[in-house]
Amino acid sequence: MIQTPYLLFLGDAPDALAAKVAQGIKDWRPDFAAAQFRMEGCKADMGLTDMSLAEAKAAGIKTLVIGVANRGGVISPAWKKILVEALEQGFDIASGLHNLLRDEPDLVAAAKANGRTLHDVRVPSVQYPIANGKKRIGKRMLAVGTDCSIGKMYTALCVEKEMRARGMAADFRATGQTGILITGGGVPLDAVIADFMAGSIEYLTPDNDADHWDLIEGQGSLYHVSYSGVTLALIHGGQPDALIVCHEPTRDHMRGLPEYKLPTIAAVRDTALALARVANPDCVVAGYSINTQHMNEEDAKAYIAKVEAELGLPATDPYRFGAGKLVDALAGL
Amino acid sequence: MIQTPYLLFLGDAPDALAAKVAQGIKDWRPDFAAAQFRMEGCKADMGLTDMSLAEAKAAGIKTLVIGVANRGGVISPAWKKILVEALEQGFDIASGLHNLLRDEPDLVAAAKANGRTLHDVRVPSVQYPIANGKKRIGKRMLAVGTDCSIGKMYTALCVEKEMRARGMAADFRATGQTGILITGGGVPLDAVIADFMAGSIEYLTPDNDADHWDLIEGQGSLYHVSYSGVTLALIHGGQPDALIVCHEPTRDHMRGLPEYKLPTIAAVRDTALALARVANPDCVVAGYSINTQHMNEEDAKAYIAKVEAELGLPATDPYRFGAGKLVDALAGL
Repeated sequence: MIQTPYLLFLGDAPDALAAKVAQGIKDWRPDFAAAQFRMEGCKADMGLTDMSLAEAKAAGIKTLVIGVANRGGVISPAWKKILVEALEQGFDIASGLHNLLRDEPDLVAAAKANGRTLHDVRVPSVQYPIANGKKRIGKRMLAVGTDCSIGKMYTALCVEKEMRARGMAADFRATGQTGILITGGGVPLDAVIADFMAGSIEYLTPDNDADHWDLIEGQGSLYHVSYSGVTLALIHGGQPDALIVCHEPTRDHMRGLPEYKLPTIAAVRDTALALARVANPDCVVAGYSINTQHMNEEDAKAYIAKVEAELGLPATDPYRFGAGKLVDALAGL
Repeated sequence: MIQTPYLLFLGDAPDALAAKVAQGIKDWRPDFAAAQFRMEGCKADMGLTDMSLAEAKAAGIKTLVIGVANRGGVISPAWKKILVEALEQGFDIASGLHNLLRDEPDLVAAAKANGRTLHDVRVPSVQYPIANGKKRIGKRMLAVGTDCSIGKMYTALCVEKEMRARGMAADFRATGQTGILITGGGVPLDAVIADFMAGSIEYLTPDNDADHWDLIEGQGSLYHVSYSGVTLALIHGGQPDALIVCHEPTRDHMRGLPEYKLPTIAAVRDTALALARVANPDCVVAGYSINTQHMNEEDAKAYIAKVEAELGLPATDPYRFGAGKLVDALAGL
């Protein structure tokens, strides 16, 4: 187990989106998020107290969590000095980056010399099977999106919160490093070997009680050419009974792909549903989750009303306005 | 790249089928297949000159390729003595077996002592990039299928052969172990980490002359729930200008998935094309490749005629009847 509380390391994050790991921890496990550490030029801010390593140590913080993901998942040389110093001052380090802490000789040496632990949550901890596609008991919801980093994890976490508030049996199933850091378990899907992707999701969401909901964190997008294969493995491995389509209305191109426009909600809905029905012919789309963080309340409500009117299923921003509508739809399945 | 020419190691193959890797090399890259090495009791024969290691060395052969798959994919103790001797005599060794050469201490030691290379084509040897989706110069064809193991590699190889016979610039691009051994290079896609799948295919098929064709070996199927993610990564990373849809009419369920029926050719055509157009809006379906190995000639021709009549594009079994029709369609793009 990773020791809490955390110092959220934001590094030299170029924008707020790059720090989504830190934001997720802060939003869903606020008790763990004791303070933040920002380097010169950092463009992200969790609104937590900025602390030096010495201040964090004095405040009883146990682990420095790398809360920023840069393209390619590399451990920047600019971060190294601080990470080594953190180990020397007695912090553990937890990371979900592709570039593993354990592959950096200076970090390994500093951890060993100071008796500290390096947690690479991205590394798969089990040998996943190849998917067998057999029908499983229990209900499963998968969040799919028009793009990456668009609110799929938040949607699943919001649905979990609302279902649990209603006394329903529900578990968020993490498929990315943020979700794993938040909940302490899951499949680091983007680091799984290609042949075992769908099998890892079958492993993550096994047979359960007939009325139990697995709320599966989505990844990528069927329309994001860098990661679409990961998305399809989730759709087929997850065998969802319901999809929720996630969208962010103000984004003008696919994340990291300036030449690519976002698909419409309707396109993602129809494409994802057709593919989902290969694994589960009874799958339906339950509703739409609209990420309105860049809209004022009036515009957000107007946009959501328009989506409902035009696309004919419940829509909401579950983080801003609650997941009630979505859970109403899921509870009827 | 694996150095050519090859000595095809047939070991103690119990039958011809066990030597299908060697057969593929001999069929598709006859210039690489300089000689064969057979142990006592070997039941396979490529019709090549049998050479001892010393003879092969004198003939300028560079690499011993393990052209036989035995039960369990294991490196037999009976083979070991010969493989070590080959390294000592200055050959590299290439293998697509599950049991990696690099996991055998005696082979590793002999390779190191003699400055030779062990090529385990089952595992990636390159750190692939994340796909960027940028438009590349040159033409690309991808074979997609209604199922796994349905003729996608043979289709691409047949098209390459026909294009080269017409003087067109064309290269088969291997994405699986057999294809890599046949051509000496490629991406072992099923062993690539999820996030880098599409990027590995961009890496495999970079910018080229405007009239050059990359003929990309397909993997899996969008409708095969175990491997569909791999297929979609190929569609988006490959950025194909043309798809050829491959089908085997006599198969009654998806390979390894007894509960799943095969999709129709039309379903695969439409689903794959819609997804391919995300990465390349100009992508078209060029035709259908029908694997008729389990049909007599009359039935095969009747089935192909029916596909053409009903689905409205050229169809053939390119291995049995030649790839002319498919290349006619591609050459017009």
